[in-house]
Amino acid sequence: MQKGQLVYEGKAKRLYETEYPDVLVVEYKNALTAFNGQKKAEEQGKGALNNKISSILFETLHQAGVANHWVKQISEDEQLVKHTKIIPIEVVVRNVAAGSLAKRLGLTEGHQLGQTVVEYYYKDDELGDPLINEDHIKLLNLVDSDDLARMKDMALVVNDCLLDCFKQCDLKLIDFKLEFGYDRSGELMLSDEISPDTCRLWDIETNEKLDKDVFRKGIGSVEKSYSTVLERLKGGVSNG
Amino acid sequence: MQKGQLVYEGKAKRLYETEYPDVLVVEYKNALTAFNGQKKAEEQGKGALNNKISSILFETLHQAGVANHWVKQISEDEQLVKHTKIIPIEVVVRNVAAGSLAKRLGLTEGHQLGQTVVEYYYKDDELGDPLINEDHIKLLNLVDSDDLARMKDMALVVNDCLLDCFKQCDLKLIDFKLEFGYDRSGELMLSDEISPDTCRLWDIETNEKLDKDVFRKGIGSVEKSYSTVLERLKGGVSNG
Repeated sequence: MQKGQLVYEGKAKRLYETEYPDVLVVEYKNALTAFNGQKKAEEQGKGALNNKISSILFETLHQAGVANHWVKQISEDEQLVKHTKIIPIEVVVRNVAAGSLAKRLGLTEGHQLGQTVVEYYYKDDELGDPLINEDHIKLLNLVDSDDLARMKDMALVVNDCLLDCFKQCDLKLIDFKLEFGYDRSGELMLSDEISPDTCRLWDIETNEKLDKDVFRKGIGSVEKSYSTVLERLKGGVSNG
Repeated sequence: MQKGQLVYEGKAKRLYETEYPDVLVVEYKNALTAFNGQKKAEEQGKGALNNKISSILFETLHQAGVANHWVKQISEDEQLVKHTKIIPIEVVVRNVAAGSLAKRLGLTEGHQLGQTVVEYYYKDDELGDPLINEDHIKLLNLVDSDDLARMKDMALVVNDCLLDCFKQCDLKLIDFKLEFGYDRSGELMLSDEISPDTCRLWDIETNEKLDKDVFRKGIGSVEKSYSTVLERLKGGVSNG
C-alpha cells in the first residue's frame, strides 16, 4: 500500500491517498487541541497511542456488527481506512454528566444519568461546533432523516458495546463523540476515531480521568493516562 | 373579580390570585429586559400595548381551536387567565433566520428558511435558557414525550394561524416563543403571552423591525413600534 498525496489535515489526524481510491492512510498526530483550538500542545507518543486504541475499538465494533471505516493498523501511528465522505455532524452519547452537558443543564459532574442522552453538534469550527436539533439538521440538509435515525441507532449500539468493553477494563465510559460518513459505494458507516481524545474515560474505582480532560484541565500526564487505557484494553480486566 | 395576593412576578408580568382558584389576574409591566436580564428599561405604555396585543392574539387562537389560558381583558394593562402550571420549556418557532438561530448556524438575518424550525429552550435564568433537545427534556423530566409532541403540534398550528393573521396586517412573522402549562384540571394549553416582546415582527414591505429587537438593538421607539403592531391588528390590512 503506497502512501500518496495528503488529502486532508485535521487537528488530530492527516489523511493520505493510496493507490486504491476507496482506501486512505490515516496518520494520527501528536497534536492536542481543546476549547475549539484555543489550547494547543504536542504530546510525544499520543498519535501512536490513539492509533492503537482506535484500532482495538474499531475491530471490537466490527465484531459487534457495527459498520465502520477501519481496515487495519499499518504502523505505530498509521491505519488504513475506507475512504468516507464525512457527514458534518458530531454525534455525542452520554452516560454520566460531564463537560458541556453538566454546564448546559446545571448538573454535577459525575451524576449518573438515568438514561442515555444523544446530542448532535454541527461540525463547524468557525461556529464553535454548536449544539443542533433535528430541525436544524433538516434545514442545513446535513443528512436525510432516515440516515440520521440510523446514525442514532448505531450510536446507541456503539454505546452498549463500548460500555461493556471498557467495564471489562475497569474503565467507566462517561461520554464520547462519533462521526459518520458514506464510503464510495454509498454505505453509511462509523468513521473518524474512538480514543481518549474523543471519549471521557474514568477509572471505575477512583474516578481518575484518563482522557483528554487531563489536557483540557492540565491535571496530569496525557501520555501516562492514554497508556493506561491502551494497556487495560490490551490486557483486559485481569491485567487491568 | 377581586385582585388578591401577588403569586408570581416575572420580568414582564405580575400574576395575582382572584377569589376563584383556577383564575389569575395578569398585570403586564412596562419593564423591558434583554440578554438574560443584562439590559433593562422601563417604557411607559408597553404593558398596556402587550396586554391588548396578547388579548387579540389569544382570542384569534381560541377561535382557531388552540387551547390557551386567556379569559378576557379587564383593564388597560390586565387580563384574566386560567391558572396554569407552566412547563419550563420555551418553544421557539422560526420562519426566517434571525437572532440566535442566525448566529448558531451562520445564517444571514432575514434568510427565509425553507421549512419551519422548532427549538426547545430550558426555561432557567441561571443557566441562560439553554437550547435543549428531546433527550435533555426526558432526562430533566420537564414534560412527558406525548405532551411534548402535542406542544410541537400546537406550536405549528399557532404558527400557521399567526403567519396568516400578521400577513393580513402587512407584518412578517419571523419567529416567536411560546410557553405551555396545565390548567387545574390537567389540560395542556398555551400560556404566557404573545406580543412584540415574544415575537419578531417585521414590516412586510420595508422589513422595519416592530418588536423587542428595537429595544435590544437600540434602533427606535418601543412604544411607537408596538403601537404600530396594535393598530394594524385592530384595523386589519385595510387600515394597516
